[in-house]
Amino acid sequence: MTEAPAASWVPIPEGSDFPLDNLPYGVFRAAGEPRVGVAVGEHVLDLAEVAAAGLLAESGTDSEALFRTDRLNPFLASGAATWTATRRRVTGLLSPANRELHDAGLAGRALHRQADVDLLLPFQPGDYVDFYSSIEHATNLGRLFRPDSDPLLPNWRHLPVAYHGRSSTVVVSGTPIVRPCGQVKPPDAETPVLAPTRRLDIELEVGFVTGPSNAPGEPIPPRDAARHIFGLVLVNDWSARDIQAWEYQPLGPFLGKSFATSVSPWVVPLAALAPYFVPPPPQEPPVLGYLRADGDWALDLQLEVELTPHGGTAETISRTSFRHMYWTMPQQLAHVTVNGTQIRPGDLYASGTVSGAERGSEGSLIELTRGGREPLRLQGGVTRTFLEDGDRVTLRGWCGGDGRPRVGFGEVTGTVQPAR
Amino acid sequence: MTEAPAASWVPIPEGSDFPLDNLPYGVFRAAGEPRVGVAVGEHVLDLAEVAAAGLLAESGTDSEALFRTDRLNPFLASGAATWTATRRRVTGLLSPANRELHDAGLAGRALHRQADVDLLLPFQPGDYVDFYSSIEHATNLGRLFRPDSDPLLPNWRHLPVAYHGRSSTVVVSGTPIVRPCGQVKPPDAETPVLAPTRRLDIELEVGFVTGPSNAPGEPIPPRDAARHIFGLVLVNDWSARDIQAWEYQPLGPFLGKSFATSVSPWVVPLAALAPYFVPPPPQEPPVLGYLRADGDWALDLQLEVELTPHGGTAETISRTSFRHMYWTMPQQLAHVTVNGTQIRPGDLYASGTVSGAERGSEGSLIELTRGGREPLRLQGGVTRTFLEDGDRVTLRGWCGGDGRPRVGFGEVTGTVQPAR
Repeated sequence: MTEAPAASWVPIPEGSDFPLDNLPYGVFRAAGEPRVGVAVGEHVLDLAEVAAAGLLAESGTDSEALFRTDRLNPFLASGAATWTATRRRVTGLLSPANRELHDAGLAGRALHRQADVDLLLPFQPGDYVDFYSSIEHATNLGRLFRPDSDPLLPNWRHLPVAYHGRSSTVVVSGTPIVRPCGQVKPPDAETPVLAPTRRLDIELEVGFVTGPSNAPGEPIPPRDAARHIFGLVLVNDWSARDIQAWEYQPLGPFLGKSFATSVSPWVVPLAALAPYFVPPPPQEPPVLGYLRADGDWALDLQLEVELTPHGGTAETISRTSFRHMYWTMPQQLAHVTVNGTQIRPGDLYASGTVSGAERGSEGSLIELTRGGREPLRLQGGVTRTFLEDGDRVTLRGWCGGDGRPRVGFGEVTGTVQPAR
Repeated sequence: MTEAPAASWVPIPEGSDFPLDNLPYGVFRAAGEPRVGVAVGEHVLDLAEVAAAGLLAESGTDSEALFRTDRLNPFLASGAATWTATRRRVTGLLSPANRELHDAGLAGRALHRQADVDLLLPFQPGDYVDFYSSIEHATNLGRLFRPDSDPLLPNWRHLPVAYHGRSSTVVVSGTPIVRPCGQVKPPDAETPVLAPTRRLDIELEVGFVTGPSNAPGEPIPPRDAARHIFGLVLVNDWSARDIQAWEYQPLGPFLGKSFATSVSPWVVPLAALAPYFVPPPPQEPPVLGYLRADGDWALDLQLEVELTPHGGTAETISRTSFRHMYWTMPQQLAHVTVNGTQIRPGDLYASGTVSGAERGSEGSLIELTRGGREPLRLQGGVTRTFLEDGDRVTLRGWCGGDGRPRVGFGEVTGTVQPAR
């Protein structure tokens, strides 16, 4: 099935992640204060300027306040009707025959090349939750962390296991990743030491970003998920495996994760992803009623991990798909809120590492290298188990592109800096 | 040693938690918008009005902006010099001979009876961290949750174990606690069910609230703790033990905790608690260098749990002290930041359940009732293992009162409402 991407008067290069079909939201700074913008091709459209010119009246009378700000949270709070109206209107403004931005003198002034601006953290998460929803990842990690017991714990197929992560260190793509120090206990040591991590890893994840809160005490049933999920980001949940292994019992991961979690600068709205949702994999045993979700909530999203070793050549080390995740986003949201917990606009709910069943489709180095025992062999004779200083990791993700419009997330990248 | 509490022109009843020696900060609403206030006796002083009259110039030129707001976060961000200047000035304004508030016409208008106002959540936590720092509690819970292994895990004496909790459901004292529903697996069942928790519990805790951030990537050594810790609150970390037991492996507590965490309306500044710090208990084995803290950082703080069974009589079910906690606040903060994590003004770092070694000094029902096997026998033949609908729990805490000025936290109270 081939379907041409929608055209725009803004030039859209072949293979761009950001055709008119996508229009993801982000926050950028050109010269002055940060603004909310929409990516189109290699450009970003300044929505604050567009709103100030009165061209977003459909999005609500206070539309300028939604966009003349340093975070998407107010827009996320505005709800699905405003999201829909804004998307429709921006699509119209960027359509080939539309001259409104030109007529308002904004075709130049409100349109920046992405390369010329700083892309900032797009939203301020209140709570950040990290799931564990890939059955392949949970099985792989269970084998490595608990070699003497069943890798999948008894609760895993009954509920989407998750924990709260640290929201203060959610950072935007491009933020340098300083190798963290922490307490580690080498296998042959009697007592722990404080040291820079020697097992710095990545986790390839996809996160959803929330819109309006639920009423206090009111769970969000799966059928209401689309009212509360605005869109998706790519996530790299950097992990220090040696710190994690020593600290994580009995209360879960903490400092092995809390030093940095990188997200893409662009939040791709559900509306742009709608054509790429597919039926989820079967769940056995059947889940409890509050987790039953109708509809196609698995996303046919291709994912790649690229590693550029220090001084070396960029190389794709993992290719996988998001469509095989065991737990879907509506199930995750229903589970989080089943006890009455409130979500807030701008919360981040990450999927957990996305790993496939085949070799080379794992979303973390600890899986790709079998716990560090089988180093990756890269170009030029370079090998890696975990990350070394100067290494750069870039995640990419996109739907379509196979003759259908490519709706992409851009990149999440980070370069490892030496420990302080 | 007897020391009279400092007097004030505001009447301070005998035994009040809030003499002039205390002056804790909170947020209240009288008629209009929320304001920051200071508790004195049975009153609260509206600092926004005081600042508007130009009487807080010592606290900085923008002092009104710090206090005409619905959260302490801006004041927390302002740092130790502003905290000290404000405390000194407010102490002066409330001293017996001072007439400045009277002369400005504020002695009535800026001073409300606490009973006449709403006390609101005093700060908005960015991140909420819950430690596990009582050796008695960790031992008791280890025995109950993992009866077949060593109750204290190998890492416990080497690092202050902690996890991230949910910040959206940190609520102020008085907020009703709706019995949460969640997935539980009865011991005799093959599969889990969705049900209201049958093991609703409390956790008696003390939390510290942070001031200015550390620089990104820069740990906070124990010697710098007082620059980053503004003050303390009482915390009730409500817990659903059946939900927790089924969900918590391998990533830690999640929905068994995330439905509500209650804090006192008053944040007691470190400056008010200074006379009550005492040497901490010895740590064996010795801790790593980054956790070594000089100075007396254990706090001689008395704690009580009162239970009022539905339709019954209030009764104290636990009496304990905060002074025996194994890990101190500077150690907790040094550990959280050793990987470079940033703290933010208004973060909440709770101690974990405070339990003593003696019977009747445990800070949770699961400990007091030995996992529910030995019900509490209350007045009038009433018994309790876990909380029933309509039960009310009130935590209280205070330093001094033994001939020295009483510096108290007021109450943290919550009444259980039926599941929805």
